[in-house]
Amino acid sequence: MVQIALIGAGSIVFSSKLIADLCLTQGLHGSKVTLMDINKERLNMVYHFATRYMDATHANFLLKTTLDRKEALRDADFVISSVKIGGYASMEKERKIAEDYGYYRGIGDRVSDYYGGIGAYHQLNFFLDLARDMENLCPTAWLIETANPVFEGTTLISRETKIKTIGVCHGHFGYERIVHQLRLNPEDVRVQIAGFNHCIWMTRFSYNGKNAYPLLDNWIEKEATTYWKNIQFLKSLPWESEQLSPSAVDMYTLYELFPIGDTVRSVSPWWHHVDLQTKQKWYGPTGGFDSEIGWSMYMKMREEEYKTMSEVATNESVPLTKGFPPALSSEQHIPIIDAIVNDKERLLQLNVPNEGTISGIPRDVAVEIPVVVNRRGIQRLPVDNFPKRLLYNIIIPRMRRMEQVLHAFLEGERQSLLLLLMEDPRTDSYEQATVLLDKLLSQSWNSEAANCYK
Amino acid sequence: MVQIALIGAGSIVFSSKLIADLCLTQGLHGSKVTLMDINKERLNMVYHFATRYMDATHANFLLKTTLDRKEALRDADFVISSVKIGGYASMEKERKIAEDYGYYRGIGDRVSDYYGGIGAYHQLNFFLDLARDMENLCPTAWLIETANPVFEGTTLISRETKIKTIGVCHGHFGYERIVHQLRLNPEDVRVQIAGFNHCIWMTRFSYNGKNAYPLLDNWIEKEATTYWKNIQFLKSLPWESEQLSPSAVDMYTLYELFPIGDTVRSVSPWWHHVDLQTKQKWYGPTGGFDSEIGWSMYMKMREEEYKTMSEVATNESVPLTKGFPPALSSEQHIPIIDAIVNDKERLLQLNVPNEGTISGIPRDVAVEIPVVVNRRGIQRLPVDNFPKRLLYNIIIPRMRRMEQVLHAFLEGERQSLLLLLMEDPRTDSYEQATVLLDKLLSQSWNSEAANCYK
Repeated sequence: MVQIALIGAGSIVFSSKLIADLCLTQGLHGSKVTLMDINKERLNMVYHFATRYMDATHANFLLKTTLDRKEALRDADFVISSVKIGGYASMEKERKIAEDYGYYRGIGDRVSDYYGGIGAYHQLNFFLDLARDMENLCPTAWLIETANPVFEGTTLISRETKIKTIGVCHGHFGYERIVHQLRLNPEDVRVQIAGFNHCIWMTRFSYNGKNAYPLLDNWIEKEATTYWKNIQFLKSLPWESEQLSPSAVDMYTLYELFPIGDTVRSVSPWWHHVDLQTKQKWYGPTGGFDSEIGWSMYMKMREEEYKTMSEVATNESVPLTKGFPPALSSEQHIPIIDAIVNDKERLLQLNVPNEGTISGIPRDVAVEIPVVVNRRGIQRLPVDNFPKRLLYNIIIPRMRRMEQVLHAFLEGERQSLLLLLMEDPRTDSYEQATVLLDKLLSQSWNSEAANCYK
Repeated sequence: MVQIALIGAGSIVFSSKLIADLCLTQGLHGSKVTLMDINKERLNMVYHFATRYMDATHANFLLKTTLDRKEALRDADFVISSVKIGGYASMEKERKIAEDYGYYRGIGDRVSDYYGGIGAYHQLNFFLDLARDMENLCPTAWLIETANPVFEGTTLISRETKIKTIGVCHGHFGYERIVHQLRLNPEDVRVQIAGFNHCIWMTRFSYNGKNAYPLLDNWIEKEATTYWKNIQFLKSLPWESEQLSPSAVDMYTLYELFPIGDTVRSVSPWWHHVDLQTKQKWYGPTGGFDSEIGWSMYMKMREEEYKTMSEVATNESVPLTKGFPPALSSEQHIPIIDAIVNDKERLLQLNVPNEGTISGIPRDVAVEIPVVVNRRGIQRLPVDNFPKRLLYNIIIPRMRRMEQVLHAFLEGERQSLLLLLMEDPRTDSYEQATVLLDKLLSQSWNSEAANCYK
């Protein structure tokens, strides 16, 4: 019997997708699925949704819930984690504090929330804790890690523990918007996308066997301006408008490959982000995902999704389909398990240690690349070399930042966090950065982090 | 007969040192020495100095002068180049232009003159030209390259041509000031210094076989403050005061190893350099080598040295010793030749392709490391690993900048130069950087560069 543990299963929106995917994957029926969370109420809600969905789809699982992580991990074959320690509230406060010191929308990655707070301490600490528990309780299990920061997290776990780790994101599907906008038949399109999580680039793009970048160039030259004035672009949700935004096109010019998905906001140049007006120029009226407008839209969407799913989970008279159509989501978690357990070979886009796949990147750095997954595990597909302008201006600096974040965490070095902050173009003086860093680390929710970063 | 070509021999101050070293190295007597420059007057001056010094030291060489580089290179065994294309005047103008756009003391490396102008175009172009001529005229000769940028230049030549290249600098002797200030007996001191040219760090420091870093720590704790208030520090020349300046000590705290020589100004953090007052805080009353005060002192010193050497060279009644004591200089050029030709094994500090010596740096990047030179050539000595904070904050970023400068040059990419400029903390907008870059490249002396960087 395959044993699957969902850690942080109380995230009902995310968990319900996975449960639906599980129910719709016949090859996994009969598995033991353990839902674990520290919040009993949310856990029960997810459990109710799961039983409803199982009934509706005639799926059968040995479904368990537990508040005890160790119990969930014991003898697991697959562990899926989506835990965000402390949720969003403290991060919002950290952002506010940083804004008081002159850092519009906070410090760290473009959207400061990515790291889950200063130095990503809480997330990194949780990742290591979880993987070390796994080393004791289910040492041969796969860890499917989906919480941010995926790049730092996957690299950290695979370096520091013996656990087989896969980082999962869905940002690479952003290329579908390009395909749609160019009016291409998706079935005749092939893409190769590679990089680090939230820093991925279309290394190949072909249509009917021919390079399709010229089609994109043509769209940029002849249609982009009209598209950006179009109501469809202007009214679209920030995470939808980013993929073909002026920022994405500018990044393509600057770095020679087209950026895909979250890449457009995460590693776009600083001068696209100086204030709301600038963000609106580059990302449209919402100012993109992580502007004050875009982010509050996202928060509102999350709230509504949560409300809907809670209703579905707790009220039998609300139709199940209100929460979920009876179809597979595009998430890759369950397909990974199905591929490994049932040898249902699949081409997926996953974060795994590089091991020589991308030239110029060390073997033990997690890269997001196309892989084939089957019973034998993960087979990395070859990836084209990056253009040098991309390599020097984006790839190496982003990798270096990952290394600095991990080094600061592992060695407990406040100095390293400070040096990172000194590179922020908004930093005017050493004093400004020191005071801000100390202030952030002195917040109540950061006492453990303050203890780490000495 | 060993053939030595001095390219750019008209730099009388530098050439006369090499000539003196040659005269005082008996093993090389009888060699053919060809002095080459495009300035006939300066060349004649150096020739006269050389004959005077030869007479005085009873040295004999087959001394030739030529205005034709190819003639100098033909069948040479060693080529020494110290050519600075265009001298300093245009760089001073470029700095002035950059200051008009808000870049105090110019753009590029901390002292913008290091690169010899925007993108280091003139120097890199000359380096390649010279090495390609050598491939035709003296393909097995050693190129001893001493003009800046040594890091970029040595890497470029060794990658792009078949010429054996050695980059030479004397900055590593900076450690002697530390030895002196700690009142250590130089004979009992051992150091290991490594990095890139102008970015070198004391990876080992021992006294009588014991780690001497604690002695330095003690000096910093107990004596540094007094030293910085002392007339000896306050009155010292900028290039002398830097080695034990507050900036150097701060860099040691930030990056875990002590910086040596030009490193202290070249890769010190930007917040040591925001204005003259700040520079004075970190480097003493002159503001360091590349402040307006320090740099003009250097220019004046060069002028005086030139005047003295011209007198010595042209006026027989001026005693030879006014220009040079009859002793070996500390320059490594002639010792390299003596070691290779006569198997006089020597421990030197040279810039050569890394080839695995420093961990974390690609094989084909030029590193400045301790080497043993003898008839077999260059043997690299093992070097300790860099601390990670140094690696991530200084070494990798500096290496990346080298790669960007070379990439911009080799591919002729103005875009890459612009992206470099966008990283300058003084850059506020894309427009500011674009306008400045275009302005610099539109100067009369840059027409060839403008043609390269499209």
